[in-house]
Amino acid sequence: MTLLEKINSPADLKQLPLSVLPQLCAEIREKIINECSANPGHLGASLGVVEMTVALHYVFQTPYDNLIWDVGHQSYAHKILTGRRDAFENKRILGGISGFPKITESEYDAFGTGHSSTSISAALGMAIAAKMSGETDRQSIAVIGDGSMTGGMAFEAVNNAGVCDANLLVILNDNNMAIDPNVGGISKYLLDITTSRTYNKIKDDVWHFLGKLGKGKPYMRRFIQNINNSIKTMLLERSNLFEALGLRYFGPVDGHNVEHLVQVLRDLKDIPGPKVLHCITIKGKGFLQAECNQTQWHAPGKYNVDTGEIISDGLKSPFPKFQDVFGNTLLELAKTNKKIVGITPAMPSGCSMNIMMHEMPERCFDVGIAEQHAVTFSAGLAIKGYLPFCNIYSSFMQRAYDQVIHDVALQKLNVVFCLDRAGLVGADGATHHGVYDLAYFRSIPNLTIAAPMNEEELRDMMYTAQLPNKGPFVIRYPRGYGFMENWKTPFKELPIGKGRCIAEGKDIAVITIGTLGNNLLDVIKRTADNSVAVFDIRYLKPIDNELLHEIFNKFSKIITVEDGTVIGGLGSAVLEFMADHNYNAEVVRMGVPDEFIEHGSTKQLRKICGFDDEAIYQQIFSMLNR
Amino acid sequence: MTLLEKINSPADLKQLPLSVLPQLCAEIREKIINECSANPGHLGASLGVVEMTVALHYVFQTPYDNLIWDVGHQSYAHKILTGRRDAFENKRILGGISGFPKITESEYDAFGTGHSSTSISAALGMAIAAKMSGETDRQSIAVIGDGSMTGGMAFEAVNNAGVCDANLLVILNDNNMAIDPNVGGISKYLLDITTSRTYNKIKDDVWHFLGKLGKGKPYMRRFIQNINNSIKTMLLERSNLFEALGLRYFGPVDGHNVEHLVQVLRDLKDIPGPKVLHCITIKGKGFLQAECNQTQWHAPGKYNVDTGEIISDGLKSPFPKFQDVFGNTLLELAKTNKKIVGITPAMPSGCSMNIMMHEMPERCFDVGIAEQHAVTFSAGLAIKGYLPFCNIYSSFMQRAYDQVIHDVALQKLNVVFCLDRAGLVGADGATHHGVYDLAYFRSIPNLTIAAPMNEEELRDMMYTAQLPNKGPFVIRYPRGYGFMENWKTPFKELPIGKGRCIAEGKDIAVITIGTLGNNLLDVIKRTADNSVAVFDIRYLKPIDNELLHEIFNKFSKIITVEDGTVIGGLGSAVLEFMADHNYNAEVVRMGVPDEFIEHGSTKQLRKICGFDDEAIYQQIFSMLNR
Repeated sequence: MTLLEKINSPADLKQLPLSVLPQLCAEIREKIINECSANPGHLGASLGVVEMTVALHYVFQTPYDNLIWDVGHQSYAHKILTGRRDAFENKRILGGISGFPKITESEYDAFGTGHSSTSISAALGMAIAAKMSGETDRQSIAVIGDGSMTGGMAFEAVNNAGVCDANLLVILNDNNMAIDPNVGGISKYLLDITTSRTYNKIKDDVWHFLGKLGKGKPYMRRFIQNINNSIKTMLLERSNLFEALGLRYFGPVDGHNVEHLVQVLRDLKDIPGPKVLHCITIKGKGFLQAECNQTQWHAPGKYNVDTGEIISDGLKSPFPKFQDVFGNTLLELAKTNKKIVGITPAMPSGCSMNIMMHEMPERCFDVGIAEQHAVTFSAGLAIKGYLPFCNIYSSFMQRAYDQVIHDVALQKLNVVFCLDRAGLVGADGATHHGVYDLAYFRSIPNLTIAAPMNEEELRDMMYTAQLPNKGPFVIRYPRGYGFMENWKTPFKELPIGKGRCIAEGKDIAVITIGTLGNNLLDVIKRTADNSVAVFDIRYLKPIDNELLHEIFNKFSKIITVEDGTVIGGLGSAVLEFMADHNYNAEVVRMGVPDEFIEHGSTKQLRKICGFDDEAIYQQIFSMLNR
Repeated sequence: MTLLEKINSPADLKQLPLSVLPQLCAEIREKIINECSANPGHLGASLGVVEMTVALHYVFQTPYDNLIWDVGHQSYAHKILTGRRDAFENKRILGGISGFPKITESEYDAFGTGHSSTSISAALGMAIAAKMSGETDRQSIAVIGDGSMTGGMAFEAVNNAGVCDANLLVILNDNNMAIDPNVGGISKYLLDITTSRTYNKIKDDVWHFLGKLGKGKPYMRRFIQNINNSIKTMLLERSNLFEALGLRYFGPVDGHNVEHLVQVLRDLKDIPGPKVLHCITIKGKGFLQAECNQTQWHAPGKYNVDTGEIISDGLKSPFPKFQDVFGNTLLELAKTNKKIVGITPAMPSGCSMNIMMHEMPERCFDVGIAEQHAVTFSAGLAIKGYLPFCNIYSSFMQRAYDQVIHDVALQKLNVVFCLDRAGLVGADGATHHGVYDLAYFRSIPNLTIAAPMNEEELRDMMYTAQLPNKGPFVIRYPRGYGFMENWKTPFKELPIGKGRCIAEGKDIAVITIGTLGNNLLDVIKRTADNSVAVFDIRYLKPIDNELLHEIFNKFSKIITVEDGTVIGGLGSAVLEFMADHNYNAEVVRMGVPDEFIEHGSTKQLRKICGFDDEAIYQQIFSMLNR
């Protein structure tokens, strides 16, 4: 029996002697590597925090102490140690555990995460709650990567924490990476203090000394006071970034030395107030390929554990991913339109802007995990005549909602927002589905909102958006594979605000937008010839009034289908048109219902949402026969 | 003729000798004080930057150089110097100039602002644009307050700027205030470096030395290199907060010594790359009352210039402001419900949370201008059993859209969001109208969305929201005065999802939400008895299906009226209900049309939007007679 097999909760972990923790870490690491090889997930981040996870649960009293994982995709070891060792097999699968912490899944998941940079705010809230409740021994711990530290709200939280006298411990998990290499001033700064030799030498001596004193608590406490007041100040030669903001700074320490981590965390536990422990880790630690190619192994899909070879999924499509269509098309357009620049908040490989970045590094800007800045930075470029293609995943665009309104739409600037991962995203689940974008942007004046049905349309929409003075332009498209083998079609303008009929019919009109048009064409093959017309509206805004007049003049039975919330999106736009023009028809709206949708395959989730092909067919069938 | 009368553009300013600039500043200050006494505006902030504004336009080549005012309410001197001296009389009035920079108003307004913390992002975009265009002499300057520096996106921009080799100058306007005193680690940090004697002594010497060298450019440039590489490093004793992030830091300097500022800015102009100049200013400078009571004089309304007495507007209402109803009710509820805490992102006096703060400082949290953090911090408190009332102005809530979705709604936490300044706000204009909230929140699962018709309803909604396990609860209410003299009514629960009929009628149903119900009651006095029924839906979400069934069963003519966008809000909800239940009625939606609305009185703006009382009456009249 392995050590890991005996651990059903952190209580079991605490029974182990310190000396066997390295072995336990090896077992956990092996389990993660094996499991993820067959049931893919976020491998790299989770491998990087195995020792940290073991040390945290070994030292702290979870779940009494609050442990919050920023982003949360690094929480696999945490899940394995907190009663989900066996459930881990079914992570990210419909009905299985989530790939992210979820408060409904385990009491050890103190706060649900998924998006970046929330952990310090949440932990500070909990720390203040503990303080108000008189629970002076209760610790609140945020584990946050250096990438997530580039997100503004992490800074907002640090700024607030610096003046709150609450037991907050921020573990800065510094691997110098987001999904891609981390960028920006803070990243350079962390590297500087990490590599400063003098500092590290003295710092190590101090920690060593601290270690020796570990047993005699009262004496140690006084010593720590001293460190804080004099020695450490001297060592750091005045204001460290975190110290400047009022948090005590400790580190950097080796995040892969579990015994040392335990020692350090035990010491820190006795230091009240807000503090930062800077841990240096390696993303992908312990699996050679993942260490060497950290971006690719962030979430590699399936792979062979022995050879380290990534296995392309059996269903590999002959068609390109929308991401690659975006990336290649952007480069193609940028070659002729010299004003085009690319902006990404830390997703150059995820959105495939790395294709342009590779050839035109001076015209691409990875601004860090900083969606707000990405949008307003784009606005600044646009106002001076450049044409930014700002690519942000749909659900992350929620972060920059105000900036789109206030800085871009209000000033009618020529910025093209490409919303990747729109619609249901599958295994990443509730935090990542891009299902509100159609609704949240439709209310905003001056925006053009488009969604391509296939690769050709994506290309043509990108082409159209970069023509002169098109104003703020949103193009949303899904994660994953397209539909066209020969997708490098010549560019043509798609007139703004014009939709099209993609199947003629006489009894029912189905209005849709985006890639669901392809599903509709499949579905109507099952219906009688010419009974169902399908319209691809293409532009949600401005919507094609002419086409809608035609539809409402001809049809009294209409179905709208969209891969977004049915509240406020395409269906609502059609209803508003109907009311505004005094039409009268039976309109059924299909899409994502008014609830958060969990993880599963997109096919399964569409079924759960009630707009899979079968559900659409049944709806058509029942309307036809009414 | 005064100096100011001769200045029609910065070119005229540049003709003046340095020595008369103090006099010019005095004249500008006098003009601002006089004008604002009769036509109110943001007095305090603008008085604080008079010298800075004069110095900037004196030294830099605006509009070729890009000058961006963060928030923008401090731009009065800027407007006066850039061709809007006379137009200044009509600032913030319908048809007059805006109280904020607007790109459509003047070429000198390089970027429109209004919300906080956008300036560095925009300026960096412009600086990069200049760099790409080979305009190496072009400067991009962001003037940002220490309050705005607490906003996360400012940090995102600084992080990005630190690694961009672009000509960016950040002027940190440090007056230690937001609208209320600034809070947080960064505020303390800035105070520390400002008051450090040793540092200031040596720094002054260096600036003095710099001044002497000002003439001999090549020598000076080498000297500045030296400063940067050795002396300054020594002075600052290693990593200053901004230096840590890759920006060169200069200062602090006295922001009210215009001649010295000119000298410093001239020197800085020759230093390439991203840099920060830390200026110490006094909010309200030059008007005693404004200096002494900075919060009250942030935007004091009308006042007597001679006595400094604030004049309550002639229309002073016998009724309380909604803000005060909120503030007093919060305290009242907090006295009995010990779990209630108050959270505000830097608006304690604006939203009247200062009432509770005064009596229960330990249960109120001003987190800085940090809406994102405010929401997730609230989530952290809520998850541990506290009940946060998180008050954020409606248009600023756009900043925390993702956090409401991802951290609160998804986890169904008991957080009460009070959206102050909802609807049309009047003089602050396009950036500040709170007209998207109904639409942008309606799409989000698990939210309850309420809007009170009057003070009593606001109190009862707040009471209802704090009852056990009501989940995420949004209450939106307008700026300004209510309708009830005796508003301290006893609390009662307002059942969630239940609306009410406030006027019976038989021919037309008007459905509304919030304070417009009061207008409707006035309007229908002009119609025949019992012809028009008025329904106050109270809860936009969950909407009262039972009441809507009644309405659609009885009426075939329906008008919806809301003080928010007609796209996706109440009107759309009614249309969705109609479609979902196969009703058939003529539904006319009235509200804010699909365009940005400028500044003016709310009455004027409602007319422009087409839902003032007269327009509603006309709509009713024409429907009645069809």
